[in-house]
Amino acid sequence: MAGTLAAAGAFGYGGGMSNQIQPPVKVLEWVGDARRGYLRLLDQTALPAAERYVGCRDTQAVWQAIRGLVVRGAPAIGVAAGYGMVVAAQWVPDGPDFITGLEAAAEYLAGSRPTAVNLAWAARRVLARAQKMGGTRCDETRETMLQEARAIHAEDEAMCLAIGRNAQELIARCRGVLTHCNAGALATAGIGTATAGMYLAHAAGKRFTVYCDETRPVLQGSRLTAWELGKAGIEAVVIADSAAATVMKEGRVQMVITGADRIAANGDVANKIGTYGLAVLAARHKIPFYVAAPYSTFDLGTPEGSRIPIEQRAAEELTSSFGHPIAPAGAAVYSPAFDVTPAELITAIITDRGVIQPVNADSVATVIRR
Amino acid sequence: MAGTLAAAGAFGYGGGMSNQIQPPVKVLEWVGDARRGYLRLLDQTALPAAERYVGCRDTQAVWQAIRGLVVRGAPAIGVAAGYGMVVAAQWVPDGPDFITGLEAAAEYLAGSRPTAVNLAWAARRVLARAQKMGGTRCDETRETMLQEARAIHAEDEAMCLAIGRNAQELIARCRGVLTHCNAGALATAGIGTATAGMYLAHAAGKRFTVYCDETRPVLQGSRLTAWELGKAGIEAVVIADSAAATVMKEGRVQMVITGADRIAANGDVANKIGTYGLAVLAARHKIPFYVAAPYSTFDLGTPEGSRIPIEQRAAEELTSSFGHPIAPAGAAVYSPAFDVTPAELITAIITDRGVIQPVNADSVATVIRR
Repeated sequence: MAGTLAAAGAFGYGGGMSNQIQPPVKVLEWVGDARRGYLRLLDQTALPAAERYVGCRDTQAVWQAIRGLVVRGAPAIGVAAGYGMVVAAQWVPDGPDFITGLEAAAEYLAGSRPTAVNLAWAARRVLARAQKMGGTRCDETRETMLQEARAIHAEDEAMCLAIGRNAQELIARCRGVLTHCNAGALATAGIGTATAGMYLAHAAGKRFTVYCDETRPVLQGSRLTAWELGKAGIEAVVIADSAAATVMKEGRVQMVITGADRIAANGDVANKIGTYGLAVLAARHKIPFYVAAPYSTFDLGTPEGSRIPIEQRAAEELTSSFGHPIAPAGAAVYSPAFDVTPAELITAIITDRGVIQPVNADSVATVIRR
Repeated sequence: MAGTLAAAGAFGYGGGMSNQIQPPVKVLEWVGDARRGYLRLLDQTALPAAERYVGCRDTQAVWQAIRGLVVRGAPAIGVAAGYGMVVAAQWVPDGPDFITGLEAAAEYLAGSRPTAVNLAWAARRVLARAQKMGGTRCDETRETMLQEARAIHAEDEAMCLAIGRNAQELIARCRGVLTHCNAGALATAGIGTATAGMYLAHAAGKRFTVYCDETRPVLQGSRLTAWELGKAGIEAVVIADSAAATVMKEGRVQMVITGADRIAANGDVANKIGTYGLAVLAARHKIPFYVAAPYSTFDLGTPEGSRIPIEQRAAEELTSSFGHPIAPAGAAVYSPAFDVTPAELITAIITDRGVIQPVNADSVATVIRR
């Protein structure tokens, strides 16, 4: 492990991401200055067929990009919304209504995807900087807003790196790792959450195989995770979701690691449908099951997982594929978007504030309230 | 249960399927007489978008239909091959080479899908009837061959019915049943294997919901099982494979039942990838896990499941969908076609010769060698 630690030490973690470890692709980036610059997004709807970028130069374009999943993943959406406010500020004229215009833009952006908490939080944070400046010195305010958006971006990169540093050694010990959905660089402005340890271990010279559940119905695993790991030179192998049990039984993986959508105070984890089943399978095969998530994913006001509401996905995702029917016309569908993995099945939750292990209400409180 | 049993009694099982319980669709059927008739097949490649039939009037058409998955499922393929020999006999001229021509046709048909045991067995069984007749009286021989093909067909129907009668009461007790892939009417000439008890219980007035795993990568569950159950008026609900754990946890199903591709002497079951994971999940949720299969699926020469070779499926099934890429170009794929469920996780194996419970080498031998 000495090699790993030495390499990790070289990253010089201290509030921003070192140049030594970059995500395999720039998911989003601000190009130019506050007054004439724009938000450049990787168009994730075109993946994996094409690596295409779109420039958002007005507020509506940012709204549409978030709504249309050009950018996705709660952390990445938050960073995009922060920069979206800088775009909005370019279109609000100097004058007495400057702040009112920014406030309206923040509400507009916050509504592009109503359930994403980071989105509204980031838009309002950048807005708050402007509000404090009082509505005069508009160009200076625009500069300050860009600084704030960049700060959100840097914090997101640092969050990923901190999770990665906590996961890296676990990954480095494995010949194979299993992951589900995309809790990767594509979902953040940095090196991802579940993937962060993979990128760091790989940069430190470790070699391992990542089995990527394709993750029906939306296939984030095969379309996104396999794509971003492949770009970084990490060996990614796509499997059908239902092949995970065999991959475990055959000894191909020594750990499972996923992201999380929401974590209750007792450590129960809501994540993409299929995560709970993986945790049960991992327990049977005595394979450790890890969750990687930033502290902002914890919802300490929700005492346990059964209280987390689970949305249903659109039936069409299971009844048609690229316009072709794959189920009988009008077929009934049950398609929960998430499931809940009980804390008892989770070996550890790896956060940017530390590792929660064993997982229970006390350990969650200790690490997250730290 | 009295209602169920009375209704089941009305089927008058005795070597053929009663008129009271028909499969929801005629997967295959011989139309006309031996001399000018033809094999009519439901084109399963068109499902679920269209219910389309093809008539096979020459040997090559039968070969192509089997090869091209117009007809699929080991039992159904066997019945099709039997009728295929009757088609072949129409094209072999009367004369000294009559038997030689039939022998060549049998080998040709047997090679359409090399791994399907029932295929070669049925073609050779119909051939053997012709061989016994010595090569003269050709039209009479053709009639006899049709009788033999019809006998294979009737035996397959009876096999399904016998499995169904052994499974019917178990199904009738459930509000919900989970199944995987298609071990249904579409895979047989009768009412299927895993589905047989569902059709009988439903015909007896029982109402229940069948959760159909979509079954990646080929989607037999959503494309085929949901389609045939829906045609029979049974409530079918399509789920992503990875939603099965949640369906169990929420108490939606009281049993799991699947088919089998091959069963070892100790009761280990090779079946479509994902079956093993379901069995592990069922055990965790204390839900009984059943396998339905005819005695011909047992391979008593294979002592245990680890000796069953597992084929790999084509990578394209996981990397593209209707011509659209769903994984990065050149992505590595691990796609075993089957997995092996250990006997200890199987509550019972329901066969046409009786119910094997508990599942072990002794009980398998007792029921199958009966």
